[in-house]
Amino acid sequence: MVFSSSLLENAVNEFAKLPGIGKKTALRLVLHLIKQDANEVTYFSDTIAKMREEIKFCSRCHNISDTQLCNICSNPSRKQELICVVENIRDVIAIESTQQFNGLYHVLGGIISPLDGIGPEQLNLDSLIHRISKENTTEIIFALNPNIQGDTTVYYISKKLKGIPVKITTIARGIAFGGELEYADEMTLAKSISNRIPVEHYINDNN
Amino acid sequence: MVFSSSLLENAVNEFAKLPGIGKKTALRLVLHLIKQDANEVTYFSDTIAKMREEIKFCSRCHNISDTQLCNICSNPSRKQELICVVENIRDVIAIESTQQFNGLYHVLGGIISPLDGIGPEQLNLDSLIHRISKENTTEIIFALNPNIQGDTTVYYISKKLKGIPVKITTIARGIAFGGELEYADEMTLAKSISNRIPVEHYINDNN
Repeated sequence: MVFSSSLLENAVNEFAKLPGIGKKTALRLVLHLIKQDANEVTYFSDTIAKMREEIKFCSRCHNISDTQLCNICSNPSRKQELICVVENIRDVIAIESTQQFNGLYHVLGGIISPLDGIGPEQLNLDSLIHRISKENTTEIIFALNPNIQGDTTVYYISKKLKGIPVKITTIARGIAFGGELEYADEMTLAKSISNRIPVEHYINDNN
Repeated sequence: MVFSSSLLENAVNEFAKLPGIGKKTALRLVLHLIKQDANEVTYFSDTIAKMREEIKFCSRCHNISDTQLCNICSNPSRKQELICVVENIRDVIAIESTQQFNGLYHVLGGIISPLDGIGPEQLNLDSLIHRISKENTTEIIFALNPNIQGDTTVYYISKKLKGIPVKITTIARGIAFGGELEYADEMTLAKSISNRIPVEHYINDNN
């Protein structure tokens, strides 16, 4: 692309550095901003800059936070003895959006994946073990992605927790709501059969 | 989406205002920026803010510009008597990227489209007529999109220019390079036959 304005070119190049944004999309975004009110664009850029400067990670659960302790950890109405272990912040947002979980989180910041060179020492694991032994935790729920890396991580952490009197569970695997049996992979279908639940339980869940 | 951080939420909302960016994409972009160096994010936001504050439109051709006169208009090596009329800035960038055109531009800022409520008075038309009568223009090339709106605009402006001694042309319509005859629409195929060119001309063009 040949630009006749370096202001335009620089802005397009900055947007094109973002993941999944090519030059053409970047140009479309910048031309959109040019059409907006100058105050709105100032607000856009200020919001981004402020976010990056002021954002923190919760000292307890490693979730993204405006303050030293995130507002999930500092909410006294949440069950302090229940910890949901997730891979990243996106998973916290996904689970929070269901509005069905009322415990705390622990963000690992990754998942054990030897092929990608990520071992247990890269994860927020020590702080998890420290929390559990200090916070009267009664249950740990693993909400990791259902793949080899997720299962390896669950296995590794469970072994680490041996001896600590805490219940360890993982979220249910099964046929997704609205999914079709015949298109489910064999593994999922097999797990959904072996982990079958009583019908009265199922009916209560859906009402 | 439920966020535990208002800094994060505000930043996601700002990105999600951009065209074609949904909440999930916005979140992905913001989480990417959080992982970047703080200085890089400051540079990103400063570049966008500076662009919006300082960008100008060329007083002669209405192209986007860093200065009062854009660097195409102020380049003395470009043919000042040749004006290519385009709909918008994106078209200038597309034509400049071919590096085949050495004249000036005139950005209409839209196209006549009664259905969208855009009439000739919304376009940069007066300044075009003013330029032509003042600048010793010898040729106007219309490079508008090949549709009813484009053709209407060409027709309208051509009528306006009646009496002014200037050659009026439009870019060639035809089968696109690499395109296949059997998939071309009838209109394009018909035009490419009626506007056929001598073979010696064609061979020279491709060498």
